[in-house]
Amino acid sequence: MNPSSPFAQTPEPPYYAVIFSSQRTPTDAGYEKMAERMVELAQEQAGFLGAESVRGAEGFGITVSYWSSTEAIAAWKANIEHAAAQEMGQRTWYAHYELRIAKVERAYGKPAA
Amino acid sequence: MNPSSPFAQTPEPPYYAVIFSSQRTPTDAGYEKMAERMVELAQEQAGFLGAESVRGAEGFGITVSYWSSTEAIAAWKANIEHAAAQEMGQRTWYAHYELRIAKVERAYGKPAA
Repeated sequence: MNPSSPFAQTPEPPYYAVIFSSQRTPTDAGYEKMAERMVELAQEQAGFLGAESVRGAEGFGITVSYWSSTEAIAAWKANIEHAAAQEMGQRTWYAHYELRIAKVERAYGKPAA
Repeated sequence: MNPSSPFAQTPEPPYYAVIFSSQRTPTDAGYEKMAERMVELAQEQAGFLGAESVRGAEGFGITVSYWSSTEAIAAWKANIEHAAAQEMGQRTWYAHYELRIAKVERAYGKPAA
């Protein structure tokens, strides 16, 4: 990962994307610290390829993380520290979220990779 | 679409997602007007299921649009008015963008659909 760029540097498809759309509650309760820790932890996971994330002024955000396989995604979901964060997310941090798991079939951009 | 919600109301998978990550240039040149028009135009396309979009204060944004098929995505890409906007995007509005086409295989959220 290039920490100065918000873009993920992903390999040629196929690979997987987890599209996480969320609306934050006004409750902080350690959210920022958890979010930073989850990025750090995700980067240590086998099969993690990168992530892109943005949240707007009204609290709606989209994070897309990229993974080599559905097995890698399942292992990340089951990670014990991540599971605790998911629990807090459901209870406290997110008023609404949607999570979609998708297989990236094609990719292109500017500038070309 | 529910215009008061930033969340797309998508059907049960499978369906397709176009994940568009972009870094805006400082150049306005009609960007906002075009962006609004593209949302309007996309909604008229056959196979359009919804979209979610957010841009942060530093100009990095993610838009995910959802489609019933790759044919619907190809028709949208080829739409003549959209093609003109893509051209302006490449030349003027985006310093960098990445576009990924992905097949959504699983989805869940809170509150449950």
